[in-house]
Amino acid sequence: MSEGGCCVSLGQCFFDYYTTKILVIRSRKVGTLNRITQALVIAYVIGYVCVWKKGYQDTDTILSSVTTKVKGIAFTNTTELGERVWDVADYIIPPQEDGSFFVLTNMIITPNQTQSKCADIPTSASLCSSHKDCKRGFNDARGNGVWTGRCVHFSDTVKTCEVLAWCPLEKTDEPPDPPLLADAENFTVLIKNSIRYPKFNFNKRNILPHINTSYLTQCVFNRETDPDCPIFSLKDIAKEAQEDFQTMAVHGGVMGVQIRWDCDLDMPKSWCVPRYTFRRLDNKDPDNNVAPGYNFRFAKYYKDIDGKEVRTLIKGYGIRFDVMVFGEAGKFHIVPTLLNIGAGLALLGLVTVICDWIVLTFMKRKHHYREQKYTYVNDFGLLSNEDA
Amino acid sequence: MSEGGCCVSLGQCFFDYYTTKILVIRSRKVGTLNRITQALVIAYVIGYVCVWKKGYQDTDTILSSVTTKVKGIAFTNTTELGERVWDVADYIIPPQEDGSFFVLTNMIITPNQTQSKCADIPTSASLCSSHKDCKRGFNDARGNGVWTGRCVHFSDTVKTCEVLAWCPLEKTDEPPDPPLLADAENFTVLIKNSIRYPKFNFNKRNILPHINTSYLTQCVFNRETDPDCPIFSLKDIAKEAQEDFQTMAVHGGVMGVQIRWDCDLDMPKSWCVPRYTFRRLDNKDPDNNVAPGYNFRFAKYYKDIDGKEVRTLIKGYGIRFDVMVFGEAGKFHIVPTLLNIGAGLALLGLVTVICDWIVLTFMKRKHHYREQKYTYVNDFGLLSNEDA
Amino acid sequence: MSEGGCCVSLGQCFFDYYTTKILVIRSRKVGTLNRITQALVIAYVIGYVCVWKKGYQDTDTILSSVTTKVKGIAFTNTTELGERVWDVADYIIPPQEDGSFFVLTNMIITPNQTQSKCADIPTSASLCSSHKDCKRGFNDARGNGVWTGRCVHFSDTVKTCEVLAWCPLEKTDEPPDPPLLADAENFTVLIKNSIRYPKFNFNKRNILPHINTSYLTQCVFNRETDPDCPIFSLKDIAKEAQEDFQTMAVHGGVMGVQIRWDCDLDMPKSWCVPRYTFRRLDNKDPDNNVAPGYNFRFAKYYKDIDGKEVRTLIKGYGIRFDVMVFGEAGKFHIVPTLLNIGAGLALLGLVTVICDWIVLTFMKRKHHYREQKYTYVNDFGLLSNEDA
Repeated sequence: MSEGGCCVSLGQCFFDYYTTKILVIRSRKVGTLNRITQALVIAYVIGYVCVWKKGYQDTDTILSSVTTKVKGIAFTNTTELGERVWDVADYIIPPQEDGSFFVLTNMIITPNQTQSKCADIPTSASLCSSHKDCKRGFNDARGNGVWTGRCVHFSDTVKTCEVLAWCPLEKTDEPPDPPLLADAENFTVLIKNSIRYPKFNFNKRNILPHINTSYLTQCVFNRETDPDCPIFSLKDIAKEAQEDFQTMAVHGGVMGVQIRWDCDLDMPKSWCVPRYTFRRLDNKDPDNNVAPGYNFRFAKYYKDIDGKEVRTLIKGYGIRFDVMVFGEAGKFHIVPTLLNIGAGLALLGLVTVICDWIVLTFMKRKHHYREQKYTYVNDFGLLSNEDA
Repeated sequence: MSEGGCCVSLGQCFFDYYTTKILVIRSRKVGTLNRITQALVIAYVIGYVCVWKKGYQDTDTILSSVTTKVKGIAFTNTTELGERVWDVADYIIPPQEDGSFFVLTNMIITPNQTQSKCADIPTSASLCSSHKDCKRGFNDARGNGVWTGRCVHFSDTVKTCEVLAWCPLEKTDEPPDPPLLADAENFTVLIKNSIRYPKFNFNKRNILPHINTSYLTQCVFNRETDPDCPIFSLKDIAKEAQEDFQTMAVHGGVMGVQIRWDCDLDMPKSWCVPRYTFRRLDNKDPDNNVAPGYNFRFAKYYKDIDGKEVRTLIKGYGIRFDVMVFGEAGKFHIVPTLLNIGAGLALLGLVTVICDWIVLTFMKRKHHYREQKYTYVNDFGLLSNEDA
Repeated sequence: MSEGGCCVSLGQCFFDYYTTKILVIRSRKVGTLNRITQALVIAYVIGYVCVWKKGYQDTDTILSSVTTKVKGIAFTNTTELGERVWDVADYIIPPQEDGSFFVLTNMIITPNQTQSKCADIPTSASLCSSHKDCKRGFNDARGNGVWTGRCVHFSDTVKTCEVLAWCPLEKTDEPPDPPLLADAENFTVLIKNSIRYPKFNFNKRNILPHINTSYLTQCVFNRETDPDCPIFSLKDIAKEAQEDFQTMAVHGGVMGVQIRWDCDLDMPKSWCVPRYTFRRLDNKDPDNNVAPGYNFRFAKYYKDIDGKEVRTLIKGYGIRFDVMVFGEAGKFHIVPTLLNIGAGLALLGLVTVICDWIVLTFMKRKHHYREQKYTYVNDFGLLSNEDA
């Protein structure tokens, strides 16, 4: 019957069904161990991978578009400028940006600058006693202008090299404290966010369907009472990020407005809602507060009566709000489901390996089990336990 | 021969080859069932996972850089401004942005504003009959300025609280309809997009190799005739997004220019081309058109002959075009390939479990099969079917 | 004993332990083959998937915020403008952006433009001999203004259609070479980057803990000597990207500053550091240099003594630096670990299939092995090899 193993014809062979021969060990100990291990694996696969981690879902990353609109009026009363009111067109720079906005909160103003020559700000490099200390044409990357080669009086007692620059130079002062636009904490911002998960053709806005125009004209976001209102008070944003707005306003900073859209698209569309969190992005580590704050210089250009260009230089300190939209959408898909089921089944196979090892190593009757389980055959002849 | 199962020496044991004992059932029914189920699993793994979903590929997400250049001239003829021509420097605000551009299409201009005092716009809050109705220093976040504490004539019949503000105040009007810059629909924009898949060190631009300068000076994107031309007419963009440009131009809006780069890097590089789609991002749901459109305020600052600051406030309505670049590149990689093959094999194991269950439960000769498949041994003795 | 296979009670059946019957082949050849193949699979799973590709880790994508600050002074001496110094407020446009900054390096200035009528720039379309060649109101998207319908002298010999436009028109010249702001190569930029991996609640900045203020005031990034300094010289950036700054400055361009944060969060936090690379983003292919460079037009608006609007149009060429932050963080997680182990186990199962095939097809004693391995039973009766 040596040919019995071979197929008589290929067609017959094709329909042979191969199934492993099984040894059934009727033992409460082994059985219990086996079932507990199986239960653990199945609980992990179903409970953790499938239900908790949603392993049966295909995921997609977010596409997002953000527009913002700040409202508010600030009032300042300084000796330089007198009484002055600041509105949106004054303190939002640039007037529109994609997914980010900057609110001016403090500034150092240097008015009436013209292209001319004046004494440099005294530093170790610019102090001089005679013209030959000042190299003509010298242009330091961190300086204020180009040296003309002359040494002139900065004040009655101090002489510095003359520079060709926008004169008068900006005084390298600390910014005013309290900040000039302290009223900025009462400003509000409407953040409109439209998202899309392209793989699932799913679109949504953060102005939820139940929000109507009358609510939108008077609501302000509050985590407890108005969690869906897309209008935020700048003071509240700072407070939620554990920052003090007035302190932050002096030197400026960067604030992250995080909008998380974690959506289970197997659930109703209305369950997919944005979650807002706020976090200061610059200078988190207290040990490492190098180069703090956020500021930049910009100028308003005028022409005087003679047609000469005059500018007002503003070193603006303020808070940049970066709207960061992130999240993941999941929806049932057959590939990840089967991938996880397959991996789970493979893990179930591992259970048998462990139980076998325990049965054949630690059980009292291990020799009996072994004899039943294994049939030996070696290269030089057959040594099955049936022969024994 | 109880020691026969144990290895005589460890070295010998190491070279033992363990293979399961198999029961071959020669039955057309079971065989057919088995083969069909196997075929389904294999077809799924090879056809769907490998070929369709490209499960053998490692994927990477895109890095993108976008620059845009708008061209076009708009002509307006209003009583306020007279005949006027608008070019790129007038209607693109700010002049350059990263991955986004704003085209001014409509506006409310308030010229010659100065810091001064004037009667507030009549609202339920600002109407007054005497000075004591106006609290000095009151500053509403949604107001126009700071109250001076006086009640003055807004018109012959209406009295409102006086505000310190940029006066004259902007009239809270609806924007002009038809829009001021109706010509904007003829503007064109050249979008230059450079992408990179860092994991595969793959770079490409949306100006494809076959596009030459002469084509680029005269082409306009058309889905049928010029699908590779990176120059888009603003009117066509609106039309492709099922929007009417002139209607949208009145209150403004946000338009998404989606560039999808889905690249199979196992294929020739030239097959990886951008696909353009257009979608309006704001206000998609007709039931939920709260806070529609897109506008922002900005100002041009002047100095009058006395050196006093004067500004022209512009409430600009327009269309912001957000260029959204997304896509995924895939390339053959051994890890995902083997992960999917492994999971597929595990699923093939499932086939045997199902077939076994059918054979041993529903087949006529199930008892014979069972006797052959199972050998029983219990804790108290051996009960193999050979003994029976 | 036909009922022996069935469980006497369900409870008893539940504790049955099923284990496959195994044929042990004691053959050096097969054993060696088997062990080698197993070793390969295990080495792949442990070595490549787990250690090299970190298959045991869950991954997260980055959230990033970037602020930049450019420093430097440029000096120009032209016949039009005379001696002039350019500082940050002059050459950074717009003054602040999110994750990107533009440095003006070259320009074509057209001063004193007003809304008026002048002869168009001569092109094939605008040349004319009489008024009837010029269609009144014609407005070409790529033109300079709106035709008034008159044909006027552009120069003594050339007549072109008159346009209503910002006159005088910009001369369609090539930009100056060498570039006007050639000094821009000495500018430095401080890039502050704050990142977050939201899934792992991990934040870090590119100003590393060991960097102190005094180092930050004088360091410049250098791949060998100062790899952690976040201040970059524009010239060095161009050099690292294999570009010549002065050549690039003439027509402008787009430069990518890539910051890669690949973090293994199972390791100490201090091992997670940014890696900087630089790459030119526009116009990489030498064969395909269509529409090279980067420029845009912007204007400064003035009012003359009569209150008429006058502007200075600037066609600004320059380098836009896009800061692209990317990377992936990984941290041990049980799901991907078990997924990979499961797939690895399934692959180990494949080893047995291959070895079986070799043993039963190529080995000399294949018939003996087959007889031992297979037990045949067919639909019409039992044909086990025990019967043989």
